[in-house]
Amino acid sequence: MEHNSILVIGGVAAGASFAARARRLSESARITIVERGPDVSFANCGLPYHIGGEIPNRDALAVQSAASLKALLNLDVRVRTEAVAIDRANKRVEVKNLDTGQSEFLSYDKLMLAPGASPLRPPLPGIEDSRIFTLRNLQDMDRIIAATETGMRAVVIGAGFIGLEMAEQLYRKGLSVQLVELQKQVIPPLDAPMAALVESELRHHEIGLHLGDGIARFESEANHVRCHLSSGACLDADIVVLSIGVKPDSELAKAAGLELGARGHIVVDPFQRTSDPDIYAAGDAVETIDRVIDSKTAVPMGGPANRQGRVAADHIFMPEKARPYPGSVGTGIVRAFEAVVGITGWSEKRLAAAGLPYETVSVNDSHHASYYPGARPMTLKIVWEPTSGRLLGAQVSGYEGIDKRLDVLSTAIVAQMTVEDLCHLELAYAPPFGSAKDVINLAGFAACNRRDGLVVHTSDLPSDPQVQVVDVRGKALSEAFPVPGKAINIPFLSLRASLDTLDRSRPVVTVCAFGKMSYFAARVLSQNGFDVASFSGGIKANIDPRTPAKLPSP
Amino acid sequence: MEHNSILVIGGVAAGASFAARARRLSESARITIVERGPDVSFANCGLPYHIGGEIPNRDALAVQSAASLKALLNLDVRVRTEAVAIDRANKRVEVKNLDTGQSEFLSYDKLMLAPGASPLRPPLPGIEDSRIFTLRNLQDMDRIIAATETGMRAVVIGAGFIGLEMAEQLYRKGLSVQLVELQKQVIPPLDAPMAALVESELRHHEIGLHLGDGIARFESEANHVRCHLSSGACLDADIVVLSIGVKPDSELAKAAGLELGARGHIVVDPFQRTSDPDIYAAGDAVETIDRVIDSKTAVPMGGPANRQGRVAADHIFMPEKARPYPGSVGTGIVRAFEAVVGITGWSEKRLAAAGLPYETVSVNDSHHASYYPGARPMTLKIVWEPTSGRLLGAQVSGYEGIDKRLDVLSTAIVAQMTVEDLCHLELAYAPPFGSAKDVINLAGFAACNRRDGLVVHTSDLPSDPQVQVVDVRGKALSEAFPVPGKAINIPFLSLRASLDTLDRSRPVVTVCAFGKMSYFAARVLSQNGFDVASFSGGIKANIDPRTPAKLPSP
Ligand SMILES: Cc1cc2nc3c(=O)[nH]c(=O)nc-3n(C[C@H](O)[C@H](O)[C@H](O)COP(=O)(O)OP(=O)(O)OC[C@H]3O[C@@H](n4cnc5c(N)ncnc54)[C@H](O)[C@@H]3O)c2cc1C
Ligand SMILES: Cc1cc2nc3c(=O)[nH]c(=O)nc-3n(C[C@H](O)[C@H](O)[C@H](O)COP(=O)(O)OP(=O)(O)OC[C@H]3O[C@@H](n4cnc5c(N)ncnc54)[C@H](O)[C@@H]3O)c2cc1C
Ligand SMILES: CC(C)(COP(=O)(O)OP(=O)(O)OC[C@H]1O[C@@H](n2cnc3c(N)ncnc32)[C@H](O)[C@@H]1OP(=O)(O)O)[C@@H](O)C(=O)NCCC(=O)NCCS
Ligand SMILES: CC(C)(COP(=O)(O)OP(=O)(O)OC[C@H]1O[C@@H](n2cnc3c(N)ncnc32)[C@H](O)[C@@H]1OP(=O)(O)O)[C@@H](O)C(=O)NCCC(=O)NCCS
Ligand SMILES: [Ca+2]
Ligand SMILES: [Ca+2]
Repeated sequence: MEHNSILVIGGVAAGASFAARARRLSESARITIVERGPDVSFANCGLPYHIGGEIPNRDALAVQSAASLKALLNLDVRVRTEAVAIDRANKRVEVKNLDTGQSEFLSYDKLMLAPGASPLRPPLPGIEDSRIFTLRNLQDMDRIIAATETGMRAVVIGAGFIGLEMAEQLYRKGLSVQLVELQKQVIPPLDAPMAALVESELRHHEIGLHLGDGIARFESEANHVRCHLSSGACLDADIVVLSIGVKPDSELAKAAGLELGARGHIVVDPFQRTSDPDIYAAGDAVETIDRVIDSKTAVPMGGPANRQGRVAADHIFMPEKARPYPGSVGTGIVRAFEAVVGITGWSEKRLAAAGLPYETVSVNDSHHASYYPGARPMTLKIVWEPTSGRLLGAQVSGYEGIDKRLDVLSTAIVAQMTVEDLCHLELAYAPPFGSAKDVINLAGFAACNRRDGLVVHTSDLPSDPQVQVVDVRGKALSEAFPVPGKAINIPFLSLRASLDTLDRSRPVVTVCAFGKMSYFAARVLSQNGFDVASFSGGIKANIDPRTPAKLPSP
Repeated sequence: MEHNSILVIGGVAAGASFAARARRLSESARITIVERGPDVSFANCGLPYHIGGEIPNRDALAVQSAASLKALLNLDVRVRTEAVAIDRANKRVEVKNLDTGQSEFLSYDKLMLAPGASPLRPPLPGIEDSRIFTLRNLQDMDRIIAATETGMRAVVIGAGFIGLEMAEQLYRKGLSVQLVELQKQVIPPLDAPMAALVESELRHHEIGLHLGDGIARFESEANHVRCHLSSGACLDADIVVLSIGVKPDSELAKAAGLELGARGHIVVDPFQRTSDPDIYAAGDAVETIDRVIDSKTAVPMGGPANRQGRVAADHIFMPEKARPYPGSVGTGIVRAFEAVVGITGWSEKRLAAAGLPYETVSVNDSHHASYYPGARPMTLKIVWEPTSGRLLGAQVSGYEGIDKRLDVLSTAIVAQMTVEDLCHLELAYAPPFGSAKDVINLAGFAACNRRDGLVVHTSDLPSDPQVQVVDVRGKALSEAFPVPGKAINIPFLSLRASLDTLDRSRPVVTVCAFGKMSYFAARVLSQNGFDVASFSGGIKANIDPRTPAKLPSP
């Protein structure tokens, strides 16, 4: 198929990937990219890491340049050029050279919209202070770096993925950092308990956490910005970084009358075609299908952007062979110092908020064979559909091997696997890499045990005084980190001999550090006539997660 | 269901896991384990690592003891007790106390056979020399460690997973190591090119490789064993470690008339039941179903052993709820110094040997974002079924993140995913963990490009002088590591301007370092009327794989 003129608006992840694929499919097309900024094809995701110096070389962030895209892919790139209007009737776009101020029209056979999304900057009092930054491109990054040369105190507002990376990198840079988050936890997409490890890691590095608190207004002082929080607290900052989310850059599409979704994203079909068949869109600006539960979603991440761009090019140049974009799972990961946490698919709270049925378990294990040096603890939580057992989501928290478990579980979700299937995944095992039963297998076991009625889980410690809370940890651990409220300590090893000290007519909840021994105990008790539930996941949240290995076991 | 007497033969991976699960399902059963050796429940897989000192503490290898299994799971463990005969008619087993020499009968309602597999020790001349070791248990390990106290020269025979681990650990211990392997490559299950990185890593550590050579006989000298190889070569050794494979310990089962497979494994149904419904078997001694291509297989690995044991317990104590063992994929991984390689599913050569149709591609990329410090190269090879596109196997080689890709691909194989599905796996991406397009996505792209006819791959450099071999690497790289044979160097960046220097009437093969630029070049050439194939995977084999980052690019 010949489409001589291809015009691309936006030249970074989705736009550049689209153009690159388009060129490989057609040597003869004229492919032009217009990009508002001075750079194309840069590593947005690396920006925080250069601020902290972890990526020392700024040039490393420029994956390609206008010149290299010309040389490599024969693409015509116009930087500092903004698309200001789409004239669909005449299939042309008005573009403005931001240096000369001059406008002209570029016509297209097919148009790709890859404008991305902009950081939110809410109209709060004082927001115009020049010491309040957002981070999207290399220029934003340069401005933040310049400000860190003299600034000592940073306030990061919003503790999502980018906020967390910024908090860490500003700390690395030597600043004192306060992190403000409206939710009562960091990384709002996670279920709160799964964020605990990262919160503890941040506190360990003396990053001030202001959770369940929002920014109300800013006050500009001569030497600093005063951040007034909703709680009434005040934080003085030399640098404020706003990282409270993004909104799709869909004004152009809107003005051109293209269909937009409820939250302003460009609506596309599975081949990334907008409501105008000659206009495609991809990346942060579009709405897509949720691969887990059939619904609309928007996943502003690099992987989807790159791959959606490629799908659009395929549909233009080889429509009969093009494969649809299958939708997004929503896989995200973030490192905060030594701690790592991530999510794929749906969380428990998202399912609950949507009123959807689900079941869940959390398990804990080492990231590789515990007998091999360097084993570090990790927690895996899974949620599934009660009737079918189909996996709906997973969250993993720990230090090492988090990305591996997320990737396996993301793949399992896409494959519509059930929790039964997780039991028998055959994951690579040699001592430096895994365990004979990986934590993913254990999660499958625990889920099936629940489904088979072998154990009843509870995720709350009972308040009813009738319930006997039995702490089956060793005495030392039990005394050092007591179960909140009233509990009877019967170390698991004495349990079988101590059954008569418990009241068979009253319910029991078993408790341990990680949820494994309490499960073992629940099995012993239920087979001995007790009405028993196991406190799922254990009370490890009461234990310093950085040093569990130093605790006596079991 | 009540089964009062459960007897288990063999108390390590499959046996102990079976017994542990059985206890959780039944508090009332009498569960007895008989184990020939002095230890139960030890970490076989950790043995090599203690020899080299990487696992410094010997006790770490004792996961449980007879006493702890009693305390924790109320299991009756008899160590140093060998089962010598199964009396199926009377449902009892004759066992012999190896310390006292006394025999007795233990009766069972259900019997579990978990005897494992023994290292092969072929009847070669001189094999009885006490300096020739095999490694299966803690006692074998202790003997090898004792021998390394005085020995300086080690010969390891067999370069499979265990042989490789032994070679590395003996080197760590300060010995000079020679590695002998009958196949022309290390790790015979791999396709040869995928073993190259590990081979180079071994040579880099001055481990002598004797590939395509076998042991013919041993000669005992006063101060050493002389190993005579088939080639005529002679290696003198203070210590010889034989690691040429294992054979199932199925003599007892055979004597009892249980059905055995072609290679002597115990035949079981999907619930691990042998041909006698009261006798189950699991672990290295059994044959199982191949999950990739419906056929019989035996996978002597820790994960399958543990999980098969659990399946058997489920079938005994909750038959209506038990889920079948779904078969094994055959996922294996090994580290040799800094290099890591692994396989899941079928290799190209195994498919070829079985006469099965397949297609394959290899791709190369960094293990995480190349702009983030520490990115290391990796190679991923996939094989798939031509008609359906279903993934049949994968091999991954590199330094970091190898286990992650294997685990994702093992999961994808089990899920019957196609190469199309790999394109859109949504893998966790932040700069320290991955790339916006992971190497797994790239493999999906490359496979689909091939399926869609966008590129023709060749895995051999042409010998026909009619063919124009076009090396599209930069001049410096091309001169430093020339393509074997005759080639024309046209750096990719000059290709579009140099089309007329090539003869359109003669076929072209494009070559680069990794297979990516040669693909780009093939696209340019084929669209300009050339008959062209891309040399898949590149000529990186000619480049020192330890230092690719130091090479000029592209
Ligand atoms: C600091 C930061 C860290 C991130 N970290 C990660 C991470 O770890 N993992 C991950 O998966 N994702 C991460 N992301 C998200 C990822 O970068 C985006 O999902 C991805 O870049 C989106 O691609 P896109 O092409 O849709 O938009 P962009 O990459 O934003 O590109 C859009 C381009 O279009 C240009 N443009 C917009 N309108 C016009 C116009 N009218 N005319 C001309 N040009 C226009 C913009 O200037 C912009 O350069 C991060 C993003 C940021 C900002
Ligand atoms: C050195 C080494 C390294 C390994 N590395 C890995 C690895 O990295 N990853 C991996 O997945 N796998 C690895 N394995 C393989 C893994 O250990 C086995 O697959 C697993 O242990 C098999 O479990 P099993 O219960 O079938 O047999 P085993 O664990 O061998 O247990 C069988 C037990 O039965 C006993 N027994 C046999 N016959 C009798 C009898 N008649 N009476 C009483 N007792 C009897 C034996 O003494 C033995 O202790 C390794 C194995 C070894 C030896
Ligand atoms: C730089 C950029 C233009 C590259 O686009 P690209 O050329 O499509 O991507 P890559 O360089 O990864 O190459 C991928 C192509 O090479 C092929 N390829 C890669 N390795 C290969 C190998 N070893 N053998 C054969 N083919 C290979 C892939 O199949 C793919 O080609 P296809 O799409 O025609 O199938 C684009 O990714 C970009 O702008 N990135 C920076 C912005 C960004 O992504 N930001 C968000 C994350 S920080
Ligand atoms: C030590 C050994 C007896 C343990 O057997 P085990 O008790 O089944 O295994 P684990 O200790 O891993 O515990 C797994 C059990 O705890 C449960 N569990 C683990 N963590 C849990 C958690 N956090 N919450 C709830 N349940 C949990 C699992 O569901 C499983 O129980 P189930 O089988 O009833 O479902 C056995 O694995 C063994 O002998 N290993 C050494 C030999 C070996 O494996 N060698 C080869 C590899 S080196
Ligand atoms: Ca473990
Ligand atoms: Ca890359």
